[in-house]
Amino acid sequence: MNVIKAYAAQSHDAPLRPFSIPAKEVGKSDVAIEILFCGVCHSDLHAARGEWPGIRFPIVPGHEIVGRVKAVGEGVSEHKVGDIVGVGCMVGSCRHCDSCEDGLEQYCEGPHGWQQTYNGWLDGTGENTYGGYAAAITVDEHFVLKISHTENQLAAVAPLLCAGVTTWSPLRHWNVGPGKKVGIVGIGGLGHMGIKLAKALGAHVVAFTTSESKVQAAKDLGADEVVISRHPDEMDAHNKSFDFILNTVAAPHNLDAFMTLLKRDGAMTMVGIPDSPHPSPSVGNLVFQRRSLGGSLIGGIAETQEMLDFCAEKGITSDIEMIQMAEIEVAFERMKKSDVKYRFVIDMATI
Amino acid sequence: MNVIKAYAAQSHDAPLRPFSIPAKEVGKSDVAIEILFCGVCHSDLHAARGEWPGIRFPIVPGHEIVGRVKAVGEGVSEHKVGDIVGVGCMVGSCRHCDSCEDGLEQYCEGPHGWQQTYNGWLDGTGENTYGGYAAAITVDEHFVLKISHTENQLAAVAPLLCAGVTTWSPLRHWNVGPGKKVGIVGIGGLGHMGIKLAKALGAHVVAFTTSESKVQAAKDLGADEVVISRHPDEMDAHNKSFDFILNTVAAPHNLDAFMTLLKRDGAMTMVGIPDSPHPSPSVGNLVFQRRSLGGSLIGGIAETQEMLDFCAEKGITSDIEMIQMAEIEVAFERMKKSDVKYRFVIDMATI
Repeated sequence: MNVIKAYAAQSHDAPLRPFSIPAKEVGKSDVAIEILFCGVCHSDLHAARGEWPGIRFPIVPGHEIVGRVKAVGEGVSEHKVGDIVGVGCMVGSCRHCDSCEDGLEQYCEGPHGWQQTYNGWLDGTGENTYGGYAAAITVDEHFVLKISHTENQLAAVAPLLCAGVTTWSPLRHWNVGPGKKVGIVGIGGLGHMGIKLAKALGAHVVAFTTSESKVQAAKDLGADEVVISRHPDEMDAHNKSFDFILNTVAAPHNLDAFMTLLKRDGAMTMVGIPDSPHPSPSVGNLVFQRRSLGGSLIGGIAETQEMLDFCAEKGITSDIEMIQMAEIEVAFERMKKSDVKYRFVIDMATI
Repeated sequence: MNVIKAYAAQSHDAPLRPFSIPAKEVGKSDVAIEILFCGVCHSDLHAARGEWPGIRFPIVPGHEIVGRVKAVGEGVSEHKVGDIVGVGCMVGSCRHCDSCEDGLEQYCEGPHGWQQTYNGWLDGTGENTYGGYAAAITVDEHFVLKISHTENQLAAVAPLLCAGVTTWSPLRHWNVGPGKKVGIVGIGGLGHMGIKLAKALGAHVVAFTTSESKVQAAKDLGADEVVISRHPDEMDAHNKSFDFILNTVAAPHNLDAFMTLLKRDGAMTMVGIPDSPHPSPSVGNLVFQRRSLGGSLIGGIAETQEMLDFCAEKGITSDIEMIQMAEIEVAFERMKKSDVKYRFVIDMATI
């Protein structure tokens, strides 16, 4: 039996170690991909450590995948051998519910919901899916994205498949563009993409950070202004002025400090889920300016492709630190301390 | 000096008692109104008891006013002596900020914000405004509404000026109409209007109550279905099915029980402000179906007129219990216990 080299955690307290995945047959609509690069998302760490419910070990993390097509099923029309392609957080969905038909597979209302790239259901088999910390992956063509960036950008494209689209989707859904004042809260893996994308979409971008040390970095990423959110005077200067705020911070914090910065009909959208609740937001802050607090989950396949094409055209990639596969546990430990600018990417040639 | 008979609280612990307001001169753009009926809103009780910050005594509550024009200023073109008119929660605003120009004076961004009908700023004078628990009121014509209901409906029209428009505005803003499934949480002064208006707008209306005794009453008001929100099975049956939920309950409660009933992109809008916070809503419930939690404040003058015209055409009024002015303290005590179906209205001939 053919096997694929991978890295897996065997239990919540075991480090990631070499592991062999049985190679999946290339079905009629499948694309078999040799993985070149895989980004390291916080979700990978949460899953590998069993910090989320429903994690099934062994687990092979990784859902920011860039690779080269090495085989296609007979029914595949959109991809051919040799193409550079991407795979993000999803590898399946019901394909016929309202959300799937709207191109928003991440909200799939089918009986199994959407299939995660790792730790996901395998339709009909009950088997687990294995992610991108591996030499190869086979995925239904609908969930394979075309990548038109240049060859030397490919490592830095990988994080677009999760961090990129997770910020792109809400920025687009809430109509961020020229004439809009947009806040990005948190300057990490997600936030740094939020700044780049909001700026490229033409908005006036204000980055919020608790850390003075990140001010220059945020400006370098494209922020028009940077506010230290611990400084009430700086915050007050932006009272009732934002059309939209994208909040990428999962750690519990005072949402009202940001809600009051929204103008009438403004919205703040959360993309991080806290382990314990944020302090309850003030209903008065919602009522008095008809503000909304929302959330958004990654992005659909169509909008992921839209984002990749937009980024290729504008020359946008993630800021990354490249690592070897064997360095993953060191990377996890550094990531826990937010010691990365802004995303680790594994060079899969090192597996 | 001409005086106007009114009822006022002299301090937070004093009952409402007869009081005389100096008659205001009828300015160029003013409409002087003989008050026929005034609804009794929960806000009146909060204000009279000094339960909100910034209450200035003596206070004359009342912002659900229906009356007859008895004089107009020389510049008034929209109203004439003898007309039946209404006054709601607002009697002034800056008139030139973005919100005022959008016809949403309740979100006025001017230096003083919008002027409340009672306990409001009086531009340039520093005096207090006095509300509708009085024989007459003089108001700038912009804040005077035309009423085209029949004479015998007028007492029951009064609550439309606050409870009506407070529910109408979010129902319209969130596009409630045919083909939409809409929840109304709480069946009190606001909720009973929410049911009537959502139904008249063509939506499928589900009322939520904690009280079995209100089931039939909610159906009588027009609800297509009634759910006892304390019964998890009944709640689960509506999982991910609502386009919009209007939540009229100010008392702290578990918002997630309702948020999970919203479909993708659904919104729940709060119109009551709790004294202490609701339990913090789950960010996961926002993220996984891109739901929003919002708020809405009364309604603008243009949409108040739209609502009044709609209600006149459809024959919609509030369900009321008529009281005499001297019974107001009894009414307040009953209102505290939610012992009213669904709004007290004062017959101002009894003052």
